[in-house]
Amino acid sequence: MKSSLRARIVAEFLGTAFLVAAVVGSGIMAERLAGGNVALALLANTIATGAALVALILMFGPISGAHLNPVVSLADAMEAGLAWSETFPYIAAQILGGICGTVTAHAMFGLPLLSLSHHIRGGPAQFFSEFIATFGLLSVIWGCSRSRSSIVPFAVGSYITAAYWFTVSTSFANPAVTIARCLSDTFAGIRPLDVPLFVVAQVAGGIAATILFRWLVPSLPSRARDVVVPHGAEV
Amino acid sequence: MKSSLRARIVAEFLGTAFLVAAVVGSGIMAERLAGGNVALALLANTIATGAALVALILMFGPISGAHLNPVVSLADAMEAGLAWSETFPYIAAQILGGICGTVTAHAMFGLPLLSLSHHIRGGPAQFFSEFIATFGLLSVIWGCSRSRSSIVPFAVGSYITAAYWFTVSTSFANPAVTIARCLSDTFAGIRPLDVPLFVVAQVAGGIAATILFRWLVPSLPSRARDVVVPHGAEV
Amino acid sequence: MKSSLRARIVAEFLGTAFLVAAVVGSGIMAERLAGGNVALALLANTIATGAALVALILMFGPISGAHLNPVVSLADAMEAGLAWSETFPYIAAQILGGICGTVTAHAMFGLPLLSLSHHIRGGPAQFFSEFIATFGLLSVIWGCSRSRSSIVPFAVGSYITAAYWFTVSTSFANPAVTIARCLSDTFAGIRPLDVPLFVVAQVAGGIAATILFRWLVPSLPSRARDVVVPHGAEV
Amino acid sequence: MKSSLRARIVAEFLGTAFLVAAVVGSGIMAERLAGGNVALALLANTIATGAALVALILMFGPISGAHLNPVVSLADAMEAGLAWSETFPYIAAQILGGICGTVTAHAMFGLPLLSLSHHIRGGPAQFFSEFIATFGLLSVIWGCSRSRSSIVPFAVGSYITAAYWFTVSTSFANPAVTIARCLSDTFAGIRPLDVPLFVVAQVAGGIAATILFRWLVPSLPSRARDVVVPHGAEV
Repeated sequence: MKSSLRARIVAEFLGTAFLVAAVVGSGIMAERLAGGNVALALLANTIATGAALVALILMFGPISGAHLNPVVSLADAMEAGLAWSETFPYIAAQILGGICGTVTAHAMFGLPLLSLSHHIRGGPAQFFSEFIATFGLLSVIWGCSRSRSSIVPFAVGSYITAAYWFTVSTSFANPAVTIARCLSDTFAGIRPLDVPLFVVAQVAGGIAATILFRWLVPSLPSRARDVVVPHGAEV
Repeated sequence: MKSSLRARIVAEFLGTAFLVAAVVGSGIMAERLAGGNVALALLANTIATGAALVALILMFGPISGAHLNPVVSLADAMEAGLAWSETFPYIAAQILGGICGTVTAHAMFGLPLLSLSHHIRGGPAQFFSEFIATFGLLSVIWGCSRSRSSIVPFAVGSYITAAYWFTVSTSFANPAVTIARCLSDTFAGIRPLDVPLFVVAQVAGGIAATILFRWLVPSLPSRARDVVVPHGAEV
Repeated sequence: MKSSLRARIVAEFLGTAFLVAAVVGSGIMAERLAGGNVALALLANTIATGAALVALILMFGPISGAHLNPVVSLADAMEAGLAWSETFPYIAAQILGGICGTVTAHAMFGLPLLSLSHHIRGGPAQFFSEFIATFGLLSVIWGCSRSRSSIVPFAVGSYITAAYWFTVSTSFANPAVTIARCLSDTFAGIRPLDVPLFVVAQVAGGIAATILFRWLVPSLPSRARDVVVPHGAEV
Repeated sequence: MKSSLRARIVAEFLGTAFLVAAVVGSGIMAERLAGGNVALALLANTIATGAALVALILMFGPISGAHLNPVVSLADAMEAGLAWSETFPYIAAQILGGICGTVTAHAMFGLPLLSLSHHIRGGPAQFFSEFIATFGLLSVIWGCSRSRSSIVPFAVGSYITAAYWFTVSTSFANPAVTIARCLSDTFAGIRPLDVPLFVVAQVAGGIAATILFRWLVPSLPSRARDVVVPHGAEV
């Protein structure tokens, strides 16, 4: 039985909220405990984020596909997997969920519920990093959906674990998460001024990967409905 | 062949004992070796706990479902998966197993077998953290039991790995483990005075997630019997 | 097609050699790089060992069952999974393989090929730790072989990752590995004098778990032939 | 439907580019943040590389087999899995992809696009390490392809995670990656002068493992077409 749009929207909201709470919260904890050792703080932040992604895609995948990312929903709509009329509710739920995740993380750590970040993340290297990071993320999703899509949670978790370290931007790769992180003046924050360029790079990277995989794997579109993980049916 | 109640109780006892031994023991080892670097100690404690959960749910899941957590048994009973008459033996076995786990960890590290913790973990942020932590844990369990429940050990292990870092309380999320940890005046301890509020938050979070998923996934109750992992039958 | 005894013996030899090379070699590397931070050295040693176990059981499991451990072969023989006439060749291959692994690790790091360890690991807490560690290891193996045994490599890798931290002895849990490690005066070494008590504790823990699971899961013996992972047949 | 040679070549190019970008990029990030703690830098580098391998083999495996390594393609050709006429395009794509990966990593971190490494990695211990590392890598691949090859991404990721630590050379185990790393004067670099001996050791180790597994698992050749992961068909 396919989940109702309302249930799927709630799943996208909750999933993105938990994802941002994990990214922001683990960043706060890591910075507090690491005593100035940034490599150690980022390692803890990385492990928490990668593990959270595995759990969240496993738990919400069967309901909504666990996109948790506007670029994923956009790419899925490009391939006719998600109706355009459902794409905007998905994206709205992700953005609102992400902001709610920041608020939740701040509440759990006894901080003001929202605070604008002063963490500068600008310049062409950062822009190029976000393009590559999101290009890779969508490549992982399209590459895996060709074979066993039940493996996608592990592929995405592994990819982001790696990408935190191999990009200078630590791979936001997600516009909803980027917006939510500009509202947190903590380890994981990003200055609001730098958000638009990050989002442009992310959307461009996602579209590029989608077009590439259209050519690499011509049979993909017929399966786009189940991007990330099969959903809308008991599996 | 369904395992006898006696075998299932022994599995819950042993599983919770091993879980607490892993949490408390790795905390002792980590604190001894980390030379005051709390981030490093918590990272080792996290990796040991997450890995232990994967192994324990895989090994005891086929026998008893590997709840290892009174909130999980309670939620399972709410959904008619576990008979209420069996719920109390499950919970008693978990609490006794947890205490036995603390004693075992202390014995392995040459410490007095029991010692009351002085680790203060109070206040609303801690309370809210435990609510969120357990809400997330039960969401993982109910979310995954809809699809391939054989994946639950990895989902729970990943979730707790993340939650150690994204909650200020380091996600106890388990009343039996909370009680057992108040008997250890070591890295993983919690002051006995703070236990009741932790347990209230955990139960509330677990019930909230169960009610939410009743609505999100209406077909869940029919599968509740196999919460966590399928058991009671050769799988 | 069942592998010949000769092929299985070679697999046990090579697998145990790689396992010990991973344990000893990563210990040497970790100690060299960690600058005296023992927690960090043990974390690297742990991750390398857990990952090696996953890879080795996956690669040699289909040939010989990937016991790589005399206690596992002994327990398998107790349950009539391995003929007693094959048990001794298995154990001899594991012990010789382990020693060869130490030699290989030393050669890779430019050290004398063999050196007796001065690392003291005695006393009742160490003895009890090895009992618990091996009791847990065999419980993992018997617990998982009831359900999907293809998951055993991940269960064993996860278990040992946790057990490195929750036992004061860092869980040798393997007589062949223990013997091999007494020949390495490096991070992972153990004083030859302490080996016999470790082996006694390991054998006792393994037998205790085997007897317990005989009662917990009465249907186990009929599957004992495939302890660790199914082998002797194309799977 | 089997992917066209052109699509497979693009997959090998992209996959090796991402692999090298992950190795080199995470090395740069780790060294920048670790403040001189080499063990911590190598741990981050290891986790990023192992996770990248899991994601990359999952995503490109169904298209090209995800060799990403000339020794793997060579071994596959030896067993008649890959036509010799396709082997050279595979290897060329891997070498070019690797160099492109170095350039991408440098661009993401704002460094000159290419720079010759001064990192000395010579001598017999390094040579022997690369022989063992690649012998083990090919053993993993051949060992797993006998049973469930869908598990290969996890086996290879786990193996390299371990091998980074148990070999003095940190297990390059891949000629294309070795060439690409000599063009990066950063943490992961290797002096061009040391490349030839690394490549010789890697090829020798790979051939030795292939010959050994021919004897260990006589039924292997019939499956060689799907070395690493099944491809060329919808799976």
